[in-house]
Amino acid sequence: MKSSVRNQFEGTIKAIVRGEAVSEIDVETAAGIMSSIITTRSMEEMGLKVGDKVTAAVKATAVFVEKA
Amino acid sequence: MKSSVRNQFEGTIKAIVRGEAVSEIDVETAAGIMSSIITTRSMEEMGLKVGDKVTAAVKATAVFVEKA
Amino acid sequence: MKSSVRNQFEGTIKAIVRGEAVSEIDVETAAGIMSSIITTRSMEEMGLKVGDKVTAAVKATAVFVEKA
Amino acid sequence: MKSSVRNQFEGTIKAIVRGEAVSEIDVETAAGIMSSIITTRSMEEMGLKVGDKVTAAVKATAVFVEKA
Amino acid sequence: MKSSVRNQFEGTIKAIVRGEAVSEIDVETAAGIMSSIITTRSMEEMGLKVGDKVTAAVKATAVFVEKA
Amino acid sequence: MKSSVRNQFEGTIKAIVRGEAVSEIDVETAAGIMSSIITTRSMEEMGLKVGDKVTAAVKATAVFVEKA
Repeated sequence: MKSSVRNQFEGTIKAIVRGEAVSEIDVETAAGIMSSIITTRSMEEMGLKVGDKVTAAVKATAVFVEKA
Repeated sequence: MKSSVRNQFEGTIKAIVRGEAVSEIDVETAAGIMSSIITTRSMEEMGLKVGDKVTAAVKATAVFVEKA
Repeated sequence: MKSSVRNQFEGTIKAIVRGEAVSEIDVETAAGIMSSIITTRSMEEMGLKVGDKVTAAVKATAVFVEKA
Repeated sequence: MKSSVRNQFEGTIKAIVRGEAVSEIDVETAAGIMSSIITTRSMEEMGLKVGDKVTAAVKATAVFVEKA
Repeated sequence: MKSSVRNQFEGTIKAIVRGEAVSEIDVETAAGIMSSIITTRSMEEMGLKVGDKVTAAVKATAVFVEKA
Repeated sequence: MKSSVRNQFEGTIKAIVRGEAVSEIDVETAAGIMSSIITTRSMEEMGLKVGDKVTAAVKATAVFVEKA
């Protein structure tokens, strides 16, 4: 499967904050923690847990830039 | 300034694809290229150019997770 | 690859509006046209063209609801 | 009211997962379930419940494309 | 039509930056300019032009908070 | 710090709806309430509370336009 999503970073799940409708998944990547809010249903269906190897991905349209 | 945006990655602009309304800014981070689509007006007002040190940032609500 | 993205709709590309930084890809699904704005670089790297079978996908956090 | 949002799909609410700040609304459309995360306040103010006829909508900038 | 989108601000279009696939629409609201990137097709189908009274709207999931 | 995010509105926090993974922050601006969904972790790390002066910000790519 080839995706139009340009930003894809491999990492390991370091923490999960479970909520009723959505949960926070924190993925440790080479650039630091990438946090993701996904539905708790997706988290459960994927069986995500701390230590899993995953890819955190995000569309370029959602990314912004700051300059010091 | 403290921000609620959890995902902030420092890097260097490696490429810019200029469009009329929006442009693509490619930031090389420790985890690989993070691409960003921003308005061309913002790019110009910030004076962004290849080689600039910037931070690429994205809300956790926009990030998703994939598992091999 | 299993994804946290709940909304995935199969379809066929019916039209493409090419821009310099981003392009519009219109995918005909069983529910009607699903339009997508992706980087022109992704479009080219994927070799997308009218008639291709693709999946249009979107995070649930980006979807809203209206009532008549 | 005419909207710039190109992707609008009519359907029926099949399930709701209520959370404190946000809730998941699953809308059955002709293309399958479209899940939406909205504030629980909006859900309550709209009086959304299973069986309601609604429109699930999403901006094209949030949609991505995958190819098999 | 009642919408789950909590943030809706009335204003007047002050400027348009037309691109091929997407265009920037700048709406002057009581809180200042709200810029929007929409497809050029939507802009044309709606017949948007400088001076039009419109509503700029955005999902709460896309908004972030900063503190001085 | 200069940001590519064009839409930045100063205001005061009027209400907070705390959830486990994400919380709703309602900011009163000159144009009305701007609601934001952020991670509860960010809310806590920033120490956000009702009455705080903050800036609510959103990328132009997330904003859409409606016409009466």
